[in-house]
Amino acid sequence: MRLGRKTDFFLNGQSESASYHYYFRKAIRMSLTLRSGFSFGGALSMLFPADKIKNEQSFLENTDEYWMSKALVKSMENASIANPNPSVGCLIVKNNELISSGCTEIWGGRHAESIAFSRLSPADLSGSTVYVTLEPCTHVGKQPPCIELFKNKGIQKVVIASKDPNPLVAGQGLIKLKEMGIECVTGVLINEVQAWLAPFFVQQKHKRPFIALKWAQTLDGCLADDNNGWQWISGENSRKYTHWLRQKYDAILIGVGTLLNDFPSLDIREIQHPNKRNPLKMIYDPFGKIFQCDKIEQEKLKEKTFKEGTKKIIFINSSVLAIEKSKKNEWLQSIIQNKDFLIVPLGEQNQPQFTKSLLESFLGKEIEDFLGRPLQSVLVEGGGRLLSAFIEEKCFDLIHIFIAPFFLGGEKHKLFSSAQKGFLSYPLKEVSTVQRYIMKVQEKLGEDILIELVQNEMN
Amino acid sequence: MRLGRKTDFFLNGQSESASYHYYFRKAIRMSLTLRSGFSFGGALSMLFPADKIKNEQSFLENTDEYWMSKALVKSMENASIANPNPSVGCLIVKNNELISSGCTEIWGGRHAESIAFSRLSPADLSGSTVYVTLEPCTHVGKQPPCIELFKNKGIQKVVIASKDPNPLVAGQGLIKLKEMGIECVTGVLINEVQAWLAPFFVQQKHKRPFIALKWAQTLDGCLADDNNGWQWISGENSRKYTHWLRQKYDAILIGVGTLLNDFPSLDIREIQHPNKRNPLKMIYDPFGKIFQCDKIEQEKLKEKTFKEGTKKIIFINSSVLAIEKSKKNEWLQSIIQNKDFLIVPLGEQNQPQFTKSLLESFLGKEIEDFLGRPLQSVLVEGGGRLLSAFIEEKCFDLIHIFIAPFFLGGEKHKLFSSAQKGFLSYPLKEVSTVQRYIMKVQEKLGEDILIELVQNEMN
Repeated sequence: MRLGRKTDFFLNGQSESASYHYYFRKAIRMSLTLRSGFSFGGALSMLFPADKIKNEQSFLENTDEYWMSKALVKSMENASIANPNPSVGCLIVKNNELISSGCTEIWGGRHAESIAFSRLSPADLSGSTVYVTLEPCTHVGKQPPCIELFKNKGIQKVVIASKDPNPLVAGQGLIKLKEMGIECVTGVLINEVQAWLAPFFVQQKHKRPFIALKWAQTLDGCLADDNNGWQWISGENSRKYTHWLRQKYDAILIGVGTLLNDFPSLDIREIQHPNKRNPLKMIYDPFGKIFQCDKIEQEKLKEKTFKEGTKKIIFINSSVLAIEKSKKNEWLQSIIQNKDFLIVPLGEQNQPQFTKSLLESFLGKEIEDFLGRPLQSVLVEGGGRLLSAFIEEKCFDLIHIFIAPFFLGGEKHKLFSSAQKGFLSYPLKEVSTVQRYIMKVQEKLGEDILIELVQNEMN
Repeated sequence: MRLGRKTDFFLNGQSESASYHYYFRKAIRMSLTLRSGFSFGGALSMLFPADKIKNEQSFLENTDEYWMSKALVKSMENASIANPNPSVGCLIVKNNELISSGCTEIWGGRHAESIAFSRLSPADLSGSTVYVTLEPCTHVGKQPPCIELFKNKGIQKVVIASKDPNPLVAGQGLIKLKEMGIECVTGVLINEVQAWLAPFFVQQKHKRPFIALKWAQTLDGCLADDNNGWQWISGENSRKYTHWLRQKYDAILIGVGTLLNDFPSLDIREIQHPNKRNPLKMIYDPFGKIFQCDKIEQEKLKEKTFKEGTKKIIFINSSVLAIEKSKKNEWLQSIIQNKDFLIVPLGEQNQPQFTKSLLESFLGKEIEDFLGRPLQSVLVEGGGRLLSAFIEEKCFDLIHIFIAPFFLGGEKHKLFSSAQKGFLSYPLKEVSTVQRYIMKVQEKLGEDILIELVQNEMN
């Protein structure tokens, strides 16, 4: 499957501003209320033993929901390697026993159904029930249509969580299954599956990457203490979930301030996953501060954030880049020559739409070629200023927030803090007119609480 | 039952400071992890229809938990009028049918068991199961011991949520029931019942009122916007829960800043309750700002916070009170002569223990006489400075926080805000050494999330 990259709005001749807002208002429109024990990271039981999750949902054995929850867990196995295909799970159940299962392979590889079916004879399949998280496909992409697998096998029932948003499939799979005389049930755990596949849905519908924001904060909204001490705000389970999100999303974006304060590795640790891989690392550095680093900072970067074996992108204003190049900056030269790096020049940007040029670049062929596949999703991890800008400009599909149960009382590391006025500042908000968000998830993870917000009620 | 008022710590000869900290460290020690659908406000299904609560727990019909959850709901009927007795619920079930129920009456009236039993003949009781949220009492207080009711009735089983913390009962009821040959089950919904009865447990164990803090905030920790606009931060369900807490707790305490900014009524609205009554209103006004009010403010107070028919207490530094009295302040004179008011002079206080003299006064006979019963619980509702002081001085048993899903970016109305340094300021906190709390409840209430924190793991 080849994903379109043209956007509705940046390139369609509407005035930029109008289309820009249209774009975000339309962001996601699914009607989600997630059950306990589920989040946009999938079924939490995959990440945590049941006693570590406060609100875990358990289903009665052998119900459709019970098997679909297992299909969702199965679908999480190939998170990040199936992208930009949806990571789908398929289970085949006969006489209340699981007889086969599959998860979408690496991009271009086999679909979940294909793997699950390949292990079984027609005799095995006869009288079975197939659970699949997404409607089987009906079109020829990199793989033959999955729907053909279901023909003449004596399959009794197919249970589907969600229809495929791809207009080439969109309900066609369901129609064909019914024509084959197979009983179909749809909508089982639809919200949980659509949340898990939200990056795929957004990309299909809006032809642009899914943007998620993530941070950990205290109850009084501090992202760190005022001493810039580098200490975890959140607890062990929250960090585990963060590392899981790094597995789920294609790329991590941070601001240069966070880079040079924390020198974060941005790698995936803390989780066991069969396909663990480090995400693409993106640094937003409009004024080229990276290239002003002294030798000590350069070495720290090389050891940590810029260490070998992962891909890195630096976003910099094109005028700043031109100046740095003219200076024959050695550190810049070595980065330009390093094939693990991509430097993306940004058009000049002004408030209040500083995210716009970044988003335009996400859609470009340069990043797709560098990554080796279309960029499906970006997780913005900080700092406070960058996050505030994404929020202020309504430039996100989802926010993951960990709230740790204590107070710091500081003022430097808060979202929208006046202490951050140097870089970006926003008009004072009032309760009566402020933008309110919708909380789709609230789960106790260890000592913290995870909440997940979207901008609009989905339909 | 007459409650002791002597404290372990204020009056026992230890150095004040040592005993003060000992007192709060010891505050509550129960091992609580509340189920979904329960909070320190009891069973949320009493307040909200099931579809308005995100995480509601439902029990299989006719299990002990099912009936005990109904006994807990029954026990909530006399919240605030049974105080300082525990508001207990008792159900009698026979052949899976509820045949009688009772809730502790107004202080000095009948206990729950007495009411439930009074409606039944011995023949009815034979073979029945009794569900009672608290162990039946064995001592003669204002009422005869409930344990006598159970004798020779042919009762098959008694299910008890929690033992009575009163040392005069503490397990004696259970022993006597067993001596009668009745099967006893204990600990069913013990955490949920102990959370509901937390003010009673704290008062029994520590001989002082239960202190709860409550506020609504945005995700970035703002209690209001910087324009001092008086607008709800939280949504309808959160406000309903707040009004329910006003029913549960004996008194509401606010600072004079909040009083003169908001002129809040502090009344109970928004809920239906068979025994709705307005709580005692307490104003913390160490420097006597109330008595500097102009005529317009006086009128507003008389219409709103100070309106007739509710009791009001003003806490003021004794030296300030002496000065105001010497001025022959007319407004002060009219308040002194009004029997709905009590003015409580406080000893001079210095940081960091400004809450100390307030707490001492809560234990005094003056307030008990004014209220007509011992003060069992106080809900501190604001503003930010007063709440920050209670938190900083570890002077609370419980915090109720509503978090509304939006950001304001202001700085004036935050806990521990530096913008509040004029009155009370606290040292900068660091992540590595900061006091962390324990989250016992997280429930989605409408668009907001309710979290409830305690200081210590309970045992």
